[in-house]
Amino acid sequence: MNYRMILYLMGWIFNITAACLLLPCAVGIFYGETQWKYYILVALVTFAIGLFLTHKKPSRNVFYAKEGFVTVALSWIVLSLVGASPFYISGEIPSYIDAVFETASGFSTTGASILTNIEALSRTALFWRSFTHWIGGMGVLVFLIAIVPLAGGHTMQLMKAESPGPSVGKIVPKVRQTAFILYAIYTALTVLEGVLLGIGGMPIFDSITTAFATAGTGGFAIRNASMAFYQSYYLQGVVTVFMILFGVNFNVYYLLLLKKFKDALRSEELIWYIGIIAFSVACITLNIRNAIYGGNTFEAFHHSAFSVASVISTTGFATADFNTWPQLSKYILFVLMFIGASAGSTGGGMKVSRLILLVKSSIREIASVVHPRSVNVVKLDKKRVDHSVLKGTTSFFVLSMIVFAVSVFILSFDGFDMTTSITAVAATMNNIGPGLELVGPAGNYSMFSDMSKIVMIFDMLAGRLEYFPMFVLFSPITWKGSYSAIKRRILWKKKSMFKKASR
Amino acid sequence: MNYRMILYLMGWIFNITAACLLLPCAVGIFYGETQWKYYILVALVTFAIGLFLTHKKPSRNVFYAKEGFVTVALSWIVLSLVGASPFYISGEIPSYIDAVFETASGFSTTGASILTNIEALSRTALFWRSFTHWIGGMGVLVFLIAIVPLAGGHTMQLMKAESPGPSVGKIVPKVRQTAFILYAIYTALTVLEGVLLGIGGMPIFDSITTAFATAGTGGFAIRNASMAFYQSYYLQGVVTVFMILFGVNFNVYYLLLLKKFKDALRSEELIWYIGIIAFSVACITLNIRNAIYGGNTFEAFHHSAFSVASVISTTGFATADFNTWPQLSKYILFVLMFIGASAGSTGGGMKVSRLILLVKSSIREIASVVHPRSVNVVKLDKKRVDHSVLKGTTSFFVLSMIVFAVSVFILSFDGFDMTTSITAVAATMNNIGPGLELVGPAGNYSMFSDMSKIVMIFDMLAGRLEYFPMFVLFSPITWKGSYSAIKRRILWKKKSMFKKASR
Repeated sequence: MNYRMILYLMGWIFNITAACLLLPCAVGIFYGETQWKYYILVALVTFAIGLFLTHKKPSRNVFYAKEGFVTVALSWIVLSLVGASPFYISGEIPSYIDAVFETASGFSTTGASILTNIEALSRTALFWRSFTHWIGGMGVLVFLIAIVPLAGGHTMQLMKAESPGPSVGKIVPKVRQTAFILYAIYTALTVLEGVLLGIGGMPIFDSITTAFATAGTGGFAIRNASMAFYQSYYLQGVVTVFMILFGVNFNVYYLLLLKKFKDALRSEELIWYIGIIAFSVACITLNIRNAIYGGNTFEAFHHSAFSVASVISTTGFATADFNTWPQLSKYILFVLMFIGASAGSTGGGMKVSRLILLVKSSIREIASVVHPRSVNVVKLDKKRVDHSVLKGTTSFFVLSMIVFAVSVFILSFDGFDMTTSITAVAATMNNIGPGLELVGPAGNYSMFSDMSKIVMIFDMLAGRLEYFPMFVLFSPITWKGSYSAIKRRILWKKKSMFKKASR
Repeated sequence: MNYRMILYLMGWIFNITAACLLLPCAVGIFYGETQWKYYILVALVTFAIGLFLTHKKPSRNVFYAKEGFVTVALSWIVLSLVGASPFYISGEIPSYIDAVFETASGFSTTGASILTNIEALSRTALFWRSFTHWIGGMGVLVFLIAIVPLAGGHTMQLMKAESPGPSVGKIVPKVRQTAFILYAIYTALTVLEGVLLGIGGMPIFDSITTAFATAGTGGFAIRNASMAFYQSYYLQGVVTVFMILFGVNFNVYYLLLLKKFKDALRSEELIWYIGIIAFSVACITLNIRNAIYGGNTFEAFHHSAFSVASVISTTGFATADFNTWPQLSKYILFVLMFIGASAGSTGGGMKVSRLILLVKSSIREIASVVHPRSVNVVKLDKKRVDHSVLKGTTSFFVLSMIVFAVSVFILSFDGFDMTTSITAVAATMNNIGPGLELVGPAGNYSMFSDMSKIVMIFDMLAGRLEYFPMFVLFSPITWKGSYSAIKRRILWKKKSMFKKASR
């Protein structure tokens, strides 16, 4: 394990976090609030740690997948712990675990909140809260790759570990350039949404924070009523469209930029993603039209589309309390929670492409019973899918089920009803935000025990990083040998000291 | 597709069903009831069909996995449709769909019932209902293999398709002998349980039917209160022990018979199975001791052990309404519903060995990140698990999730709460019987719509046969070519007639 390199990269994460903390400071000063002092304090301490860790570039460049996963997992944990500090020391969130929950929920773009009165927060805190979504959406290490020149091997391993989806597609051969293009598209779309919201009459502060939360498919709103606060079909419609857009694989946008329209629109994942959305919106519209909206088809369609977009993109905004909708609608949303957005997007969940791969490989398995001698390969976008990708997809599915089962087990100790426990875990591990019943759009996560909150913090980060990094970090296999290596080194130092002394 | 051979084997299924129907006849005559006439009528018609189909042995012996899966799937559908007839024509179950539900629930050893008053049924019907469990437990085609001499290739394909577990272990090299040994152990254990129950003072009719229902891990009781009717720790204890025993891989018993005690007890699946039971019983005992049984540890342990044994073995008997237990206990039982019993047992669910394989292959996947160059093989009982078995296990898992998601979707139209819909599907596809809320131990399945009942009939049969046979039967790939082959044959016949005519 290349500890020095891991620490060096972690140092850069500290530096970036410190830089990010300056933004809410500026906002605080602009609005004449006092909380910005806490943010600058945390930024300075963080920057000091970062400087200490990055002052010397390690000479040993060895960097494998193992190091990549460990770095990414540790980065996100540090990010959450540091990012939570200003909430806690400013006293705006009195419990540190709650603060970490809120921050992990932000960075992981979950949007699950322990706050009962969001509007009581300072603008400084609200801005920071929404900005975490934007950083977490595309990934802090992807950002690092884009801005800091790192030696060759590292970047791909970091990108692999942080980017969502069964396999990482580099847009261009160079990883750094890929990261840069991704952030450029991301920024452009965010700005576009902010402008469109501003044109629609949304206050500028609201426009910016909403754009951040949509871009990262996060879901933190700065109003207690979430998006229902903005009673405008236009504003809610813009958010609906952008939620869907940020759930699309960013490769599609790059292809569009290159004017390869055919390639872009032929993407199998895109077709399924749109198909699933259309089917779900249609079902729910029919289901809630009479039951909830008194036969008003447009109203039913509007809220159905918003909720479906919000859940499948794993954003988690709400215009309506879908917890009060009929069973069928609730169940469709529950299934969408697990499916999630597209690979290579900012959304969470299992990802549509993994669903396609799982379905296709099952069909192949049935076909191999019927025609045992035929060679059955799984294809995606007319390309043969590598065997290791299929194995990884299966493991993703199994690991997520294990995380799901164990988490609900621990949450059950709190004694809330089963739908609450199950959907709380589903909504956090898939980075959505609201679940059903007590954690529905009208509820929040404040009533859970600290134990349950810690479990859900793990779930949010593990889900954002798609399980492997967290499992690698906490698996004994990773650290086997490290302990004995450290012991050997200490023994060796002692010996050499002893030799010196005896000379 | 070898249609003649499939029809020939189906003919034997008709014959066996007819023979089985004679047993409730005898019971009816013995108790002086009148319903036996309907059973003899159905038996005669069934036998006539059977004779017609088996009067000539087909000459073509070609029989692949495809034919095996189709035969098994069709057999179980026919079994359910025929077995339901006496319930319907005797008027004891007025709706034919309900009758098929009850029968499919019997043969698939689910034990989910649409009856609101079980005790109103005649003894003839009660006996038939319980006996379906016994036939379904070990499998009707395994029975066929054991008694009817069939040509070589068939038997293994049929055994593969019908027997539960990721891979079929032949106890002895000859399939027929294996089937015979399995049925011998099965019968011996059933008789032993019946005798032990009789000794404990249970009426003889109750002893026999309870033994049938335990042996098949079915769960149909002949009392409205299920096993809670027999207020005796001894009787309930005997049933607890036998539910666990019938959830064990029968290979273990064969090894014990051969006095290979070490091999038998070292079975990894057995160790996990016992471990999961012990852990669950301990958790639930602690959880319900004060909440339900006022601090009485023995009482809590007794009912906890009974419920855990009932759910993990997928039997579905009840001594207590676990729907009223605290959330944690309910959740543990919910997870056990999916895990299920051991491979090669009469139980349903995913099977413990599949769980082991999934967990192990995920660990291997994590290990391969840490040590990319090492060769990671998955082992079970110190033997390397074949790659195709791992792929099959994954597909099993994915297919079961697809069945689960689609079934709950259709059930949601009925508008019952989510826990009811979810556990109704879980309890039927995993062949358990009772779920939670409306379908809890104190409830039943009568309130569902016909559409939902048909879905659950499919789920029960598909679950019992572990999904592949049903998917093969209903998949277009299987029948591709058959249509054109039939068309070709008709054309060819017409041509030859034309030739004859023109001559």
